[in-house]
Amino acid sequence: MTTRLRLDIAYDGAEFRGWANQPGLRTVCGVLEQALSTVLREPVQLTVAGRTDAGVHAEGQVAHCDLGDAPDLGKLTHRLARFLPADVRVTRIAVAPPEFDARFAALRRHYIYRLSTARHGANPLERGYVVPQAKPVDVEAMRAASARLLGLHDFAAFCRFREGATTVRELQRYDWAVDGDRLTATVSADAFCWSMVRSLVGAVLAVGEGRRPVEWVDRLLSERTRSSAVLVAPAHGLSLVAVDYPADADLAARTAETRAVRTAPPPGSCCGD
Amino acid sequence: MTTRLRLDIAYDGAEFRGWANQPGLRTVCGVLEQALSTVLREPVQLTVAGRTDAGVHAEGQVAHCDLGDAPDLGKLTHRLARFLPADVRVTRIAVAPPEFDARFAALRRHYIYRLSTARHGANPLERGYVVPQAKPVDVEAMRAASARLLGLHDFAAFCRFREGATTVRELQRYDWAVDGDRLTATVSADAFCWSMVRSLVGAVLAVGEGRRPVEWVDRLLSERTRSSAVLVAPAHGLSLVAVDYPADADLAARTAETRAVRTAPPPGSCCGD
Repeated sequence: MTTRLRLDIAYDGAEFRGWANQPGLRTVCGVLEQALSTVLREPVQLTVAGRTDAGVHAEGQVAHCDLGDAPDLGKLTHRLARFLPADVRVTRIAVAPPEFDARFAALRRHYIYRLSTARHGANPLERGYVVPQAKPVDVEAMRAASARLLGLHDFAAFCRFREGATTVRELQRYDWAVDGDRLTATVSADAFCWSMVRSLVGAVLAVGEGRRPVEWVDRLLSERTRSSAVLVAPAHGLSLVAVDYPADADLAARTAETRAVRTAPPPGSCCGD
Repeated sequence: MTTRLRLDIAYDGAEFRGWANQPGLRTVCGVLEQALSTVLREPVQLTVAGRTDAGVHAEGQVAHCDLGDAPDLGKLTHRLARFLPADVRVTRIAVAPPEFDARFAALRRHYIYRLSTARHGANPLERGYVVPQAKPVDVEAMRAASARLLGLHDFAAFCRFREGATTVRELQRYDWAVDGDRLTATVSADAFCWSMVRSLVGAVLAVGEGRRPVEWVDRLLSERTRSSAVLVAPAHGLSLVAVDYPADADLAARTAETRAVRTAPPPGSCCGD
């Protein structure tokens, strides 16, 4: 009888080559699986909600793993806090229902992208997660462009190619908040294809800086391959802040529904969307 | 006819050996003076409000300098933003009255000290400026101890020795705010002696963790030399967030008053409190 655990995870992406394991490189999943396997004294494999790229941060990443024995969660939290490097933290550990799947049961992922419009650049203490936006931007034009991207579309123009992966996604939220010099995008979708959030930010910044008209984004939605006209915004402005899941009773149905339309998980561990 | 400039400055203290110039070491003042001298093509010397120690941050540091010619401030801000490394920013430059003295005209300095009481430690993105507080603390006891330290006292027990420097200071504010896992101290005084804020935090944390009774701080105030019982809290939790100055008409009087009780500035540049 295995026990399924849900882990909530935060990390600074700067010193990681992204989430997914790559031989010889420092990845979030690699560091976490090694720490968990050592502390729990059994091999642990993680499945994750959002496979973040190199340099991308997370404040609300979610993963699951299966253990042979139910661990003492209080002790595990404490030992992991001591064992893990300071740039990755397991912020919460809980026993999850066997139907809980961090990847396939997720209803939606929420990312934020942080920019500073200050003339002097980003605040030094925040420069690891805030990108300086030197050129002035028209936030209303950015909001108008973002609103046109909402809904179920083929986001191929915004996606790096990944074999067998669909680029049809439902963009549920894309808005821009202004707080003094801080300009923050919130981007939510059922799932994201590769580089999609950073491409959405790059495209809307082109509109904000006046390099493209608002209507340009409509044309992007009609393209069927990645657009070279869309710049990918720098990784360090991006952070996965939350993942939504259905109530426990609806987990199994959601997982079955998602698996039917999503690609098969790659063999081995560290898989996710 | 010289022009006096006021510079508002922010920095991440991690990679600096503090504010004051030291031969062969990377200091905030050294990096700023070099950048200003290069951009302005004349030697520039800075006088500062708070000479922060190695590893201490600033979000509201203030300095002044005198220039032979009045520069174009817009251009200067822009060129400095490009010329300075990302861990130090000049957030504002303005022409100041000749009576403005960043060090001696200051009415008070405001510092904050940031702790995280989360079991998992500091948020990875914030770990450069938030110190994990692993042991549980009694915030009410900390508030009571902090309140007893307010007022005009000889803070010798909290100060590292500096030849000729007085340790009599007026502590005007010392309180603790709780926001979720974040525990933030705000500490304000007319001026601070060396290591004083971090010692005040260390002493009050000893009370918060139950290692000392609240009344212990009274005894510290009666000591005339540095107390080995007071632990100095880590540098990276501390940030100088603001400096208050009187209205322009009162600058000269304030400077004269302060100079009378403060030590003579050391020869050369980078001096401050």
